[in-house]
Amino acid sequence: MVRVAAVQLAPSVTEPSTNRARAVAAIEEALSGGADIVVLPELTTSGYVFETVDEVRAVAIRPDDELLAEWSRLAATRPRAVIVGGFAELGADGALYNSAAIVDGTGVRAVYRKAHLWDREKLFFTPGSEAPPVVETAHGLLGTMICFDLEFPEWTRIAALLGTEILAVPTNWPHMERPEGERVAEVQIGLATARINRMAIVCADRTGVERGVAWNEGTSVISADGWLVAEVGAGSGIAYADLDPALSRDKTLSDLSDAFGDRRTDLYERFTPHPGAR
Amino acid sequence: MVRVAAVQLAPSVTEPSTNRARAVAAIEEALSGGADIVVLPELTTSGYVFETVDEVRAVAIRPDDELLAEWSRLAATRPRAVIVGGFAELGADGALYNSAAIVDGTGVRAVYRKAHLWDREKLFFTPGSEAPPVVETAHGLLGTMICFDLEFPEWTRIAALLGTEILAVPTNWPHMERPEGERVAEVQIGLATARINRMAIVCADRTGVERGVAWNEGTSVISADGWLVAEVGAGSGIAYADLDPALSRDKTLSDLSDAFGDRRTDLYERFTPHPGAR
Repeated sequence: MVRVAAVQLAPSVTEPSTNRARAVAAIEEALSGGADIVVLPELTTSGYVFETVDEVRAVAIRPDDELLAEWSRLAATRPRAVIVGGFAELGADGALYNSAAIVDGTGVRAVYRKAHLWDREKLFFTPGSEAPPVVETAHGLLGTMICFDLEFPEWTRIAALLGTEILAVPTNWPHMERPEGERVAEVQIGLATARINRMAIVCADRTGVERGVAWNEGTSVISADGWLVAEVGAGSGIAYADLDPALSRDKTLSDLSDAFGDRRTDLYERFTPHPGAR
Repeated sequence: MVRVAAVQLAPSVTEPSTNRARAVAAIEEALSGGADIVVLPELTTSGYVFETVDEVRAVAIRPDDELLAEWSRLAATRPRAVIVGGFAELGADGALYNSAAIVDGTGVRAVYRKAHLWDREKLFFTPGSEAPPVVETAHGLLGTMICFDLEFPEWTRIAALLGTEILAVPTNWPHMERPEGERVAEVQIGLATARINRMAIVCADRTGVERGVAWNEGTSVISADGWLVAEVGAGSGIAYADLDPALSRDKTLSDLSDAFGDRRTDLYERFTPHPGAR
């Protein structure tokens, strides 16, 4: 079994100097709690509610930055630990990306750039154009995508088809009203996505009001059969759960049914309307 | 607003003569309750738990059968009423299909053949190979697919991209254990699918133990923003809800975000692994 820790914390776009310390404290706590994989929110190093591109540029870092190197040193303190977290990336091309890094004791294993930018992120960031990475770890095949990406079933299906066993989803879900007794809508999407693809999903959401924006605080660990196995609730905290990556490798649904094998790929190609047709 | 009625009833594979009467009674009750659209379960005319192909063949009907003509006459008793329900179809090609008909006062408007057959259905039925139909009605663009089809996000996305505003899903969900307090897994998938595609979904599940098989009794009406607005619960019954098809036509998620417009179709084509590659 793989022990995952989904961290809900409060990055701050107005006090970026606090972000490093909050992330380090959370990683240390999660590793002390026995975590093999620690997932941090989207834009953990920078905060989220930017007002100008200059603000983003001031805090954007390259993947070889000391902030991620420190995560790697922390990961090295526990055998085979892996950390996934979001950061504002300054690309070699000078562009700004809303990115997530997969880091272990050897360094940065992969950087993913959010492909589906939400709302005003489009004013600040360049969308990514590479597939969600799948990294071979001691805890199975670990993938990542960011927040709004999860709401595109084409994208989550690609991650699953590429072999992802545990999908880490750093996220910042702005608060949205919901009917009494209902779950966070994005968590519902996570549950369905996990079940449809037989892929465990670990969502690390943020907390803390930032420039008037509150958050859904939906940090959740979801098993490959689509059930919620741990959540944080309101405020800062860590949700721990033990996941079995083997469950994600078995796409069998019944004696004669298979979540992947039953796909009608010929029909999907034939009937999906082309973009220009709409 | 469009008043939909999702019917949960108990077809019987061992007493097919009761099926006609149960469907007629439910349709009459739903129309009396003011329903514009009535959705009946999968294989309403025949029952589900077949043991042999001969059993299926004995109850399979053509779309011009009196059973569906009777649904049409019932629909004609209320202005612009539409009925969607499942039946075992005998194709002109002699093959057997697990089908759904969209029927109004003028007759059968469309027949859809289930494309994703579940488990032992593969022993009895030929899978369909046409897209989910989209029928122009007085209550907006009405589509349909059947049961396990709903668990393939490629297929529900196609229905939405083709313009479906209300998706009627006749279903027979075999009972599956779930954690205390959790919803039926397939309903979770319905909620997420509705929200991701901004498309209302009406699921009509069955009840009644058949040859030892019990059912999830998950009959549900889900709005285009992904919330459950009506359900039946245990036993036979009808869930009513008023839906606004205009909500399904608006794919806007925020000032700068759009559920369809933000799709990265170029990336989906580039990164979706081809079937043979797996």
